[in-house]
Amino acid sequence: MAKVSCIHFSFISFLILILFSHSWFPLLKPGILGSRNRVFGSLSKTKVQQSKNHLTENYHHPLDPLTVKEINKVRTILSLYSPFFSFSPTIHSLTLEEPDKSRVLGSKRGHPFPPRKARVIVLSDGKSHVISVDLDLNRVTDHAINTGSGYPQITMEDMNMAVNVALSNAQFNKSVLERGVGLSDLVCLGLSAGWYGPSEEGRRVMKVQCFYSENTPNFYMRPIEGLTATVDLDNKQVVQIFNTGRNIPIPPGNNTDYRFQVQDKLPEKDPLKSISSEKSNGPNFIVEDEHIVKWANWEFHLKADQRVGMVISQARVRDSETGETRSVMYKGFASELFVPYMDPDDSWYFKTYMDAGEFGLGACSSKLVPLNDCPGNSYFMDGVFVASDGKPYVQPNMICVFERNSGDISWRHTEVILTDPKINEARRKVTLVVRMSASVGNYDYIFDWEFQTDGLIRVKVGLSGMLMVKGTSYENVYGIHNQEDLSGPLVSENVIGVLHDHYINFHLDMDIDGPNNSFVKVDMVKESTLQGQSPRKSYLKAKRNIAKTENDAKIKLKLYDPSEFHVINPDRRSRLGNPSGYKLVPGGTAASLLDLYDPPQLRSAFTNNQIWVTPYNRTEQYAGGLFVCQSKGDDTLAVWSKRNRPIENRDIVLWYTLGFHHIPCQEDFPIMPTVSSSFDLKPVNFFERNPILRVAPTAEDDLPVCRPSTSF
Amino acid sequence: MAKVSCIHFSFISFLILILFSHSWFPLLKPGILGSRNRVFGSLSKTKVQQSKNHLTENYHHPLDPLTVKEINKVRTILSLYSPFFSFSPTIHSLTLEEPDKSRVLGSKRGHPFPPRKARVIVLSDGKSHVISVDLDLNRVTDHAINTGSGYPQITMEDMNMAVNVALSNAQFNKSVLERGVGLSDLVCLGLSAGWYGPSEEGRRVMKVQCFYSENTPNFYMRPIEGLTATVDLDNKQVVQIFNTGRNIPIPPGNNTDYRFQVQDKLPEKDPLKSISSEKSNGPNFIVEDEHIVKWANWEFHLKADQRVGMVISQARVRDSETGETRSVMYKGFASELFVPYMDPDDSWYFKTYMDAGEFGLGACSSKLVPLNDCPGNSYFMDGVFVASDGKPYVQPNMICVFERNSGDISWRHTEVILTDPKINEARRKVTLVVRMSASVGNYDYIFDWEFQTDGLIRVKVGLSGMLMVKGTSYENVYGIHNQEDLSGPLVSENVIGVLHDHYINFHLDMDIDGPNNSFVKVDMVKESTLQGQSPRKSYLKAKRNIAKTENDAKIKLKLYDPSEFHVINPDRRSRLGNPSGYKLVPGGTAASLLDLYDPPQLRSAFTNNQIWVTPYNRTEQYAGGLFVCQSKGDDTLAVWSKRNRPIENRDIVLWYTLGFHHIPCQEDFPIMPTVSSSFDLKPVNFFERNPILRVAPTAEDDLPVCRPSTSF
Repeated sequence: MAKVSCIHFSFISFLILILFSHSWFPLLKPGILGSRNRVFGSLSKTKVQQSKNHLTENYHHPLDPLTVKEINKVRTILSLYSPFFSFSPTIHSLTLEEPDKSRVLGSKRGHPFPPRKARVIVLSDGKSHVISVDLDLNRVTDHAINTGSGYPQITMEDMNMAVNVALSNAQFNKSVLERGVGLSDLVCLGLSAGWYGPSEEGRRVMKVQCFYSENTPNFYMRPIEGLTATVDLDNKQVVQIFNTGRNIPIPPGNNTDYRFQVQDKLPEKDPLKSISSEKSNGPNFIVEDEHIVKWANWEFHLKADQRVGMVISQARVRDSETGETRSVMYKGFASELFVPYMDPDDSWYFKTYMDAGEFGLGACSSKLVPLNDCPGNSYFMDGVFVASDGKPYVQPNMICVFERNSGDISWRHTEVILTDPKINEARRKVTLVVRMSASVGNYDYIFDWEFQTDGLIRVKVGLSGMLMVKGTSYENVYGIHNQEDLSGPLVSENVIGVLHDHYINFHLDMDIDGPNNSFVKVDMVKESTLQGQSPRKSYLKAKRNIAKTENDAKIKLKLYDPSEFHVINPDRRSRLGNPSGYKLVPGGTAASLLDLYDPPQLRSAFTNNQIWVTPYNRTEQYAGGLFVCQSKGDDTLAVWSKRNRPIENRDIVLWYTLGFHHIPCQEDFPIMPTVSSSFDLKPVNFFERNPILRVAPTAEDDLPVCRPSTSF
Repeated sequence: MAKVSCIHFSFISFLILILFSHSWFPLLKPGILGSRNRVFGSLSKTKVQQSKNHLTENYHHPLDPLTVKEINKVRTILSLYSPFFSFSPTIHSLTLEEPDKSRVLGSKRGHPFPPRKARVIVLSDGKSHVISVDLDLNRVTDHAINTGSGYPQITMEDMNMAVNVALSNAQFNKSVLERGVGLSDLVCLGLSAGWYGPSEEGRRVMKVQCFYSENTPNFYMRPIEGLTATVDLDNKQVVQIFNTGRNIPIPPGNNTDYRFQVQDKLPEKDPLKSISSEKSNGPNFIVEDEHIVKWANWEFHLKADQRVGMVISQARVRDSETGETRSVMYKGFASELFVPYMDPDDSWYFKTYMDAGEFGLGACSSKLVPLNDCPGNSYFMDGVFVASDGKPYVQPNMICVFERNSGDISWRHTEVILTDPKINEARRKVTLVVRMSASVGNYDYIFDWEFQTDGLIRVKVGLSGMLMVKGTSYENVYGIHNQEDLSGPLVSENVIGVLHDHYINFHLDMDIDGPNNSFVKVDMVKESTLQGQSPRKSYLKAKRNIAKTENDAKIKLKLYDPSEFHVINPDRRSRLGNPSGYKLVPGGTAASLLDLYDPPQLRSAFTNNQIWVTPYNRTEQYAGGLFVCQSKGDDTLAVWSKRNRPIENRDIVLWYTLGFHHIPCQEDFPIMPTVSSSFDLKPVNFFERNPILRVAPTAEDDLPVCRPSTSF
């Protein structure tokens, strides 16, 4: 991983100045109408973007992120807090402390909100402090010190410091120069060290590795192999250096630059320039009060988060039969990642990243590129985050919302039996996508939450960006005695693409028609017929098993032992008596095969099963625990769940881990075409019948009329 | 299943008259330009459609389907063929007999083609005859009689006859009337009987069941439960009647009509009328000579097929580095379906459909609805098929081709480490989709082949249409003693959604850089480190295993025993020495759990494994065999493969089965929102590096300018 915090100190004041005086996004016409700060995309018929003046922003919903004003207030309160008089603690996290769920559920617009609170995590004297600040009472109301293992999220200062300490170390410095690298072309990264036993416990450490950026910004493809420093961040010193790669050349830099402006040879055929448009009458969604998204029959609260990137809250869908707006999901977000590289050598063994807790998906988020990351008519949302000195900064355009008309079919039927009437009915599918991308060093993770009018939510993760590669003296495979001795295939001259996995855990606090739910595993079991009973020998039966305790819902997916996975509301039944529910439908995925007691697997023990269900507990948010850096795995989903608590007929949380195995190939060099995988949350007896039966087919008149742009 | 052939006799002459005098699709401007009958979508800037005069069509490619002229010629030749003098055989199939693969591969435009041949399957005297007709020599050149089990595809006449025989049977007729159904509201279907033992062997049989269509065209939701006739088609008599459902009411018809025109209540909120447009500068693909599709770096031959629906042939991709057009897939198509219902009772046990071989996906294909099934600017292709009297007919607009701009990301990277230069690169994804839909009675199967510029092909199957449901006296679940006693959940009053599976087998004749390939199973295996070797205890290794014989490639997917599945060309290596290849990447899928010796599982034994590889054999096209109706499973992929033939370093065929388990729910009533699943064929070391690195980002000027239509 990489030193991935994204703004330098010197930039912050400049940024605030810009915020104050300038719009972030060019306007054609202002799109802000009405007293409720609502952006009407479809009526304004312009780009759906308005100037964002975060300095004056207020919150409108109990789950809204802390505003700039609130962040500044917290910093002031902390500066007056006596334990912090003698020093300036480093802020590793400063974020909204969400009100109790029951209070959020009870909130109504126009009524007083629950008190606004901030949760601050600071490091002081090697200890992690968790502080609650009450913004209404203007004081610290809680202060706990972490006694478990692990440290908070790494800051940019940590990473800079690790690199500086390494480069200030004479031996390390010398080793770099010996590789023939000039300091002006050197790029070094601070990488998370994981936890691998007592020698690194009790202090904060990072690994430092370097790359050569001569003639290319794609330094990832030019590793200085086998040179790793372990840096003690507390004492600011190098504690260990491995330099086992002296004889491994630095891979050449040609053909690694991916920027369009430097491509010297145009694609042989580039016919896609005049591409199908998405421009239209304007999108059909509105964003109220900065964070409430309303589209078709869906509404939900959407916000950026410095740790997990993006949070969808209070997702509700309107029942077209009753007009009722019904709860589906209280909260959904990517709670942790686990990215183990499959190479045990001294420069690779520790690469077992947990990117959300170690670096922060929001902190690493990208400014989305219009028309390329997100189609035209996308709505862009900023993140307001906090630097390690407690000062707010803006991560602009880090989330986009857009309506997708992908050409898929919503439902259809051609009636072939009846000739009169002739029936050929089809309806097209239009969906809403909410997207962000986190560039966690080399890798770019694209997160999509896609909402369909039939009630289905599809959660998709896309992977792009660069491989983490290993230098080698091999320029081709012919000299390799046994390719299996390498930790991955050769993807370019002197470049090995090391085998690795990606696991992304999703925290899915389903609230089907309310918080009181149960989890039902519907097993499909083969039954044999009795002798003489039927010409059939076998068939399947669905057997419903309500999970009583956590152990009943620790699930490893098996193709030959299939099940459905329902979250139901046992108190709400359809008119037929079926319980209202949603089911989790996995797509393609992968499972971790690492030894259960391998340190990285202990830390990421949430990957021991693909599915878990826990009783709602406000402290159980992140599957890898709150303090992930160098954690020993003592505060993970797997540990919480050992208590085997009751999960029937109460507020429960569903956890699903999406996985990828990645054996790299040449097409991944020097940058990877996106691969993706997804899972669905699908209504099951939630609606009385097909909820989109009465949708109108699309006619020619529904479509706008387009002419080519002048440049065509 | 259903009586699913789609045109009455009386229609055919009318149709031919229409063909002769009228365009099938309204024109704005003719789009046919040039001597090569090329449609230039992007230049014409109108709807990409031209009038199709199939009567005068000629073939242009050895794999082109038989033209109307050729079909008529075959019929003439057959009428003069002495064994058929004394009777008129029923044509169960009349289609192109494709030339030997080596001849097709050797064909070049402008040079003489291999001779045109037709393969005709007729039934005569209860025997299936396979006849080759040489259209150049004007005579029958081969005539074989099937000695194995099974019968050819069911014709519309068969289905009509089965229903007529049943309704002419006094006992059956009386049983229908006793249910309170008037004949004017009766809809009866001929269903495939499968094979269940000696009592039905030696003669062609079908099952007949009836439905009530009073006040709704959605008669599927109103079954006359438990009344089944078995009809002997050869002797035209009823051989068995089950009437065990007398006490089961016919489900009510309210809320079952799905036609838009009859919806009495508009959706509570219908905001999606003014929907995002796909109108543009026009699509970027051309269709040459009716069947050759060229888009971006892809080209392939595309045709309709009466049995399998749609065939993609000679799919080739241009290598942007070398300019070379390289072979990827010789042929790909859905070769068979298997849809077993999980209910052993007398009216359900036999519902174990093999829809391609029994009814024909092309024969059942739908006329795609513009703007709903396929976006604007789609190109539509007809099928030219043959009725049971040997006369040609047109299945209009049964395939569409469109460019999809779905808002996904092709690749991206934001560089967070370097501050100078600031790098934020992203490219959007544009793909080409080829689609058809087969309405096999109640179910609609949507087949998509999606081509990406990075070389990936995604094959997707969508399911919509109606459930096959079972009548019951239960109006809600409260009276049901044990829900597991029913063969599925209650989805409406008196309606059980019977549990069932869908399996779709794909024949993928991969020709990676030519026909000589090998199959490599790359297993990901856990390795343990040695004591003291590393702080890591475990990691994964990729182990390549080249399949030598068929048994090495009979694969059941296992999440905890993962592998990659490569088809490589051992004679073509990248500059690094990696063999050129493509890998099959499964998505979500399902596996059949039926007893291996259960008759339906024997017939569909291709579902015993998810993946198979066979040596190319021109007779091995359809995974369930050539004669599927009432087959005993003696000519399936599983049987061919028992020979355990060598598959290394030769022309091989990859077979993949995509599966769904379906436990119905209320949302599936009265018509199902589309569910879909897919798999990918992805280049692996096929290209020297990322093939889309040099694609330009999309800029504002690339997009057309749109205004709302006047009706907005």
